[in-house]
Amino acid sequence: MNAVDIIIKKRDGQALSKEEIDYFVRGFVTGDIADYQAAAWAMAVLWRGMSREETRNLTLSMAYSGETLDLHDVAPIVADKHSTGGVGDKTTIAVAPMVSACGLPVGKMSGRGLGFSGGTLDKLEAIPGFRVDLSVEEFRAQLAEIGLVVSGQTKRLAPADGKLYALRDVTGTVPSLPLIASSIMSKKIAAGADVIVLDVKTGRGAFMETLEEARALAHAMVDIGQGLGRQVAAVISDMNQPLGHAVGNALETAEAVMTVRGKGPEDFWRHCLAIAEQMLILGDRARDRATARSMLHKVVRSGRALRKLVEWVEAQGGDASVLGDPPAMAVASIVKDVVAPRSGQVAAIDAREVGLAAVDLGAGRRRKGDSIDHAVGIVLQAKVGDRVAAGDRLFTVHANDREECDRAQERVLQAYGWAEKGAEPPPLIYEVIG
Amino acid sequence: MNAVDIIIKKRDGQALSKEEIDYFVRGFVTGDIADYQAAAWAMAVLWRGMSREETRNLTLSMAYSGETLDLHDVAPIVADKHSTGGVGDKTTIAVAPMVSACGLPVGKMSGRGLGFSGGTLDKLEAIPGFRVDLSVEEFRAQLAEIGLVVSGQTKRLAPADGKLYALRDVTGTVPSLPLIASSIMSKKIAAGADVIVLDVKTGRGAFMETLEEARALAHAMVDIGQGLGRQVAAVISDMNQPLGHAVGNALETAEAVMTVRGKGPEDFWRHCLAIAEQMLILGDRARDRATARSMLHKVVRSGRALRKLVEWVEAQGGDASVLGDPPAMAVASIVKDVVAPRSGQVAAIDAREVGLAAVDLGAGRRRKGDSIDHAVGIVLQAKVGDRVAAGDRLFTVHANDREECDRAQERVLQAYGWAEKGAEPPPLIYEVIG
Repeated sequence: MNAVDIIIKKRDGQALSKEEIDYFVRGFVTGDIADYQAAAWAMAVLWRGMSREETRNLTLSMAYSGETLDLHDVAPIVADKHSTGGVGDKTTIAVAPMVSACGLPVGKMSGRGLGFSGGTLDKLEAIPGFRVDLSVEEFRAQLAEIGLVVSGQTKRLAPADGKLYALRDVTGTVPSLPLIASSIMSKKIAAGADVIVLDVKTGRGAFMETLEEARALAHAMVDIGQGLGRQVAAVISDMNQPLGHAVGNALETAEAVMTVRGKGPEDFWRHCLAIAEQMLILGDRARDRATARSMLHKVVRSGRALRKLVEWVEAQGGDASVLGDPPAMAVASIVKDVVAPRSGQVAAIDAREVGLAAVDLGAGRRRKGDSIDHAVGIVLQAKVGDRVAAGDRLFTVHANDREECDRAQERVLQAYGWAEKGAEPPPLIYEVIG
Repeated sequence: MNAVDIIIKKRDGQALSKEEIDYFVRGFVTGDIADYQAAAWAMAVLWRGMSREETRNLTLSMAYSGETLDLHDVAPIVADKHSTGGVGDKTTIAVAPMVSACGLPVGKMSGRGLGFSGGTLDKLEAIPGFRVDLSVEEFRAQLAEIGLVVSGQTKRLAPADGKLYALRDVTGTVPSLPLIASSIMSKKIAAGADVIVLDVKTGRGAFMETLEEARALAHAMVDIGQGLGRQVAAVISDMNQPLGHAVGNALETAEAVMTVRGKGPEDFWRHCLAIAEQMLILGDRARDRATARSMLHKVVRSGRALRKLVEWVEAQGGDASVLGDPPAMAVASIVKDVVAPRSGQVAAIDAREVGLAAVDLGAGRRRKGDSIDHAVGIVLQAKVGDRVAAGDRLFTVHANDREECDRAQERVLQAYGWAEKGAEPPPLIYEVIG
């Protein structure tokens, strides 16, 4: 077996065997297969695609390219959720304590924001003191103790994926369905979750812009996870307009806290329920969606979800005193309300543009390693389907620089589309697969 | 401009601008663009192809990535020929002195054999003392003095091509028409030839197996060369069965010498005429094929071509005493005649298989840098269309190892196809483009 023959086989549209995939992934991790060979291979995979079996084998190969966690000694069953990334997506911060409060342990390794899409770790770090760099030992101990932990991905898990992802990023080989699916799933498999709920976003503010693409990715990931003996479901959710009202780290964390308090925006609350319900069902804590929903309502109403959130934040070194009503995190020096330039109905809010406006304000990274400003962002008062009059408050910009504030205002104004009437909010959830 | 955007543009099927191609080639040579980026790009080019304009720009970019030769101070006009590679292709060794003897200077940088296909430098080195590593200064001086020089490619010419070719070889990105065409033509352009005759082989023993592929490559190269102001023609010639009778370095050089003496095999002689005629016409030494042909016949009959060959060999340090009738170069320890296993007509001789049998004997390289045995090879007595009786001599194996000899015998026997009647020799030349 050799690397060139494997590249040529894929280039010519043939399926690779499990042995060939294992050989390639192993060689890539050890350096026996050069980066330039992996790059040519990745482009060939992007071109020719991979069968279900190949994708599953690639996932397994990457999952087992380093350490893997077995968490069954600390929790009988562990649930995880993963979002393919969007704008205003603070779901983990609300859902994790809600689900954990229902008696299903949640252990999750999460990521940073990049491009127009935010990252859970950045949002959690808006809480002063919150640590996201837990060791594997700390991760396990916290999961055992409070049944809830969210930390950064350790480099020791699925190193092949880390290396391949970095290479894909600089070789134009990111948008390949089997490579995206196996990248996500290899990390989930290596991190030891028994239950995996995938939140696959679709729309202008998602990597999968069409429902068709999102559905294909969802099916691929569910197929991989089920093929490897995990309980997996995928929820295909809308990302044409931002999720909830807040976009920006502290603003989003505050919105998640309010949601755990039972006072979140309607659309975000319903989205959280859809994800959390699937976790409880797959985790065998609820027999159907109605039961799951009533459990979730209960832990929020009773304050148990909020207590779990406080416990979680404290366990990771965060200052829980900021989780009040309203929460009190970083505040921007400029808070500017922007009013509607016309009367009418909001027909669209381009999530990608709003995400990029937040990045412009300093809420995200233009490059890896850039520092971010937790305080800045945008809060949308009117969303798709809302009727406003000229002069009504449309959104608020939170900025730390006057010029950046003006640019963000302009960009978000442009992101709004208008109709006289008949504009319907997009569905929150398109379908559930699994 | 950045490398990733250029890769993505090509990956998505768009044409690259001259500026983008220049940026990429320059960056690749300086190392600012990484090998893995060039590898992904090459795979994207293989997938998406390139327009005529892109291919011409790529050629120009690679041709001017290092030194370029301007030979007009040493010769008013310089002719070159290039073969895309085949089995038994010793054309340069016969054609170069014939054309030079007709008054058209020939200056050529040539290559080594790789895979089943031989290389002119290896064949020339079967002449004791023959040097193929001339400096640019020696190349120019010899061209000025005797109007004939053939040397190895210097690394200072078209370094981008050298680097890209090495990368393509290990990343499965060799068989791309624009990459092949620009690779060949960038070297020819950099080496300063005014007249370029391309011998594009097609068939089982060629890289372009179908006439359609060969025609596409020929058109692409002629288009590039003419677009850059050179006199270019392409001769599409058959490589289903080996060219001439001899396959193997000293055996082929001897056959070329006999051809210059006017005693070569019929098919090879006609092939040489087809190439040489085009060179003389493009080089303005003959106004049509008939005139060119009569000039070539004349220099062979008069011995002027042979004298030019001797002069050439001596100028490059070779021992011209081996160029007798018959020539006396390296002789193998085993010379075994193999007889026809049946009566009938030869319907096919798989050139690739014969080429590989010669490599097995040691005539070629399995990897770059392998040493080769000049003495070994195969001489075909019966070619396609010939009628033989069982027991007639079919071919001769020249070997230096008994086992290798037996294996080659078996392989060449298998390469022969048979018919009762009606087998026609394939056309030598399919068409001339230019």
